[in-house]
Amino acid sequence: MLEKKINASAEVTVLEDGKSENWTVQPSYAAQHCKNFIRDIVDNLNLQPNPEKPVIALSLGDPCVYGNLSPAPEVVQAVADVLVGGRSNGYFPSVGQECARQAVAEYLSVDGAQISPSDVILCSGCSSALEHAITVLACGKKGHNILIPRPGFPIYRTLAEAIGVGVRYYNLLPEQNWEVDLFHLESQIDHNTAALVINNPSNPCGSVWSEAHLRAVMSVARRRRIPVIADEIYERLVFPGESFISVAALEAGVPTLICGGLAKRFLVPGWRLGWIVVHDETSALHDIRSALVRLTQRTIGSCTLIQAALPAILQQTPITFHSNLAKTLQRHAQLAYECLKKAKGLTPYMPQGAMYMVVEVDMSGFPMFSGGLELAGRMMEEESVFCLPGEVRVPLV
Amino acid sequence: MLEKKINASAEVTVLEDGKSENWTVQPSYAAQHCKNFIRDIVDNLNLQPNPEKPVIALSLGDPCVYGNLSPAPEVVQAVADVLVGGRSNGYFPSVGQECARQAVAEYLSVDGAQISPSDVILCSGCSSALEHAITVLACGKKGHNILIPRPGFPIYRTLAEAIGVGVRYYNLLPEQNWEVDLFHLESQIDHNTAALVINNPSNPCGSVWSEAHLRAVMSVARRRRIPVIADEIYERLVFPGESFISVAALEAGVPTLICGGLAKRFLVPGWRLGWIVVHDETSALHDIRSALVRLTQRTIGSCTLIQAALPAILQQTPITFHSNLAKTLQRHAQLAYECLKKAKGLTPYMPQGAMYMVVEVDMSGFPMFSGGLELAGRMMEEESVFCLPGEVRVPLV
Repeated sequence: MLEKKINASAEVTVLEDGKSENWTVQPSYAAQHCKNFIRDIVDNLNLQPNPEKPVIALSLGDPCVYGNLSPAPEVVQAVADVLVGGRSNGYFPSVGQECARQAVAEYLSVDGAQISPSDVILCSGCSSALEHAITVLACGKKGHNILIPRPGFPIYRTLAEAIGVGVRYYNLLPEQNWEVDLFHLESQIDHNTAALVINNPSNPCGSVWSEAHLRAVMSVARRRRIPVIADEIYERLVFPGESFISVAALEAGVPTLICGGLAKRFLVPGWRLGWIVVHDETSALHDIRSALVRLTQRTIGSCTLIQAALPAILQQTPITFHSNLAKTLQRHAQLAYECLKKAKGLTPYMPQGAMYMVVEVDMSGFPMFSGGLELAGRMMEEESVFCLPGEVRVPLV
Repeated sequence: MLEKKINASAEVTVLEDGKSENWTVQPSYAAQHCKNFIRDIVDNLNLQPNPEKPVIALSLGDPCVYGNLSPAPEVVQAVADVLVGGRSNGYFPSVGQECARQAVAEYLSVDGAQISPSDVILCSGCSSALEHAITVLACGKKGHNILIPRPGFPIYRTLAEAIGVGVRYYNLLPEQNWEVDLFHLESQIDHNTAALVINNPSNPCGSVWSEAHLRAVMSVARRRRIPVIADEIYERLVFPGESFISVAALEAGVPTLICGGLAKRFLVPGWRLGWIVVHDETSALHDIRSALVRLTQRTIGSCTLIQAALPAILQQTPITFHSNLAKTLQRHAQLAYECLKKAKGLTPYMPQGAMYMVVEVDMSGFPMFSGGLELAGRMMEEESVFCLPGEVRVPLV
């Protein structure tokens, strides 16, 4: 009876007030404001490679693209053991399996850092870790903003704007090894600033900050009472002779959410194993901890096969694997640096770690192009070399 | 010079106006409003099992807990092959690898449903698929609400309220095989209703709707111009003799986002491989499609090892694996049903599929307990049996 009535009335074309006959569903605010800025640039360039030359893609931080960099055999074996063991196919706790959290805590408790398993929350990749970190601290409704580096990884802006949170850029200084312009950073803080995002080692600068500079940045955060989100996905991925200092090793008195993961140092970005470390000497993050737990309950974290393999992955990867990777990346960077240095109008910045190199273009040497965007497009068309164009605002001294 | 100045001023205890000396960071609106309702109930019950009896956990839809249900060997082999192949450790497209999307499209194009690879978006588990589906359609700023079933899976509410979207319940009718009370459903719709969530087969009812009833529900959605989110994570997980009909098989004229994944039918919930199928005969979802793509770019989807294995997983799992699983679940359900039926004051509802059973409690038969919540607590304390308490509002006729 019920069904019949409803089915019959479905035949009638009378519609709700305000609902049109043509049915178009509009995306929500969040979906409309979620943008991938690199994708936008690339799509607008409408890049067409030279069909006679294979594409050399230098636009993405994926170490696996060319097959020359593979994870350690111990890492593959660790996952294989878990898979065949058949005991890790069900749900794990949303914050991650206890022994996996323990393994991350031990892995990161080096060089003066002390992290406990309860400080660790596993996520589906470092992007998801960053999403949780930004979401838990900043709120669109409150008019919050976060401070992010320029130049910097565009996903910070993507994640923030999707939840209505504004971004304010602070400048990095190319002539000072991409250190933060501390005066400019200070000038960007206002009473709505909910977090300072730092990224060390840096994507895309390849810079690795000294302890002194890291302390200087944290001092600003402490004095202005701004919690820090430290993107340390490139932790310890530094060239021979360079030193990486985690914010977890400083007693800087700043409540900090440290984001990291397996992606880069273990050469498995596709496995989507990231983490947040709640670093909180001042006990300012008590409510943030429980809120982060709740956020993970929405979508339940990362693949259990990788989680269960995590202790073996982190403990059994030989030190030589990491040191060889650093040497390889340095050799590649050095080669690129030497070649680019010779090109008129180009100034490469030799990185100290990570997987990136910034090359400054003196546009007066390229009068045929309107700007870096066009140059990048023509490099793709002529040489099938794909670089990401970008802009650095050099502050007025 | 810069550093020195900043470091020096960090020693001074002058703080920003309005920032207290004691530093406490408050979670954002989203984090404060993200709640796991089952967890809340469980925590408030402060459940202590009987230490002399092993816990029988009937509270979670995880088929892997007791080790009696394992994935097909073909599925394990498929992932092992990908792992050893070493070609799937890098980033895949944020919407999923093309061949994996193709495999999902073929897998779901049965019983009259026709799905193309471009309709498929891979996600980190079905929870993530549901989060994207709700996020893309509904908006807290606009005062949107979504309609969700009662009784129903609590994550719909968790996901909606975390983004400020309200929920309105529509009743399911226990005496009519948990079909939707269509009059009640209609009464819950208003001009702010952004989506109707349906869940068939149902968690927790175990019901499987007839085609006629599914059409009746979709007719309401069509007439009232409400897009549908169809949670079909239990698709084809129905007992022998029962039939599952996907909304993708109906030409119901309703723009629908179908959410599903490997979790239940392949017994691997921990692997976090879910999907959204954009089912859109009326082309109403043009902008929703591109918005969903943007949403996936925030955190980049699911583990590439599982994605790359997906074609083999979906194609090589024997039909007998699925039919045996259905038989096993039916046998377990039948056994529980027969036992519970004999208990005075308990009325079990025999499911037709999925992994759940609702048991109605006539509280007049249990005068020593104040309600279902206390009964559940005492069952845990005395028998170490953990059931989720719940309430069904029986509508006034």
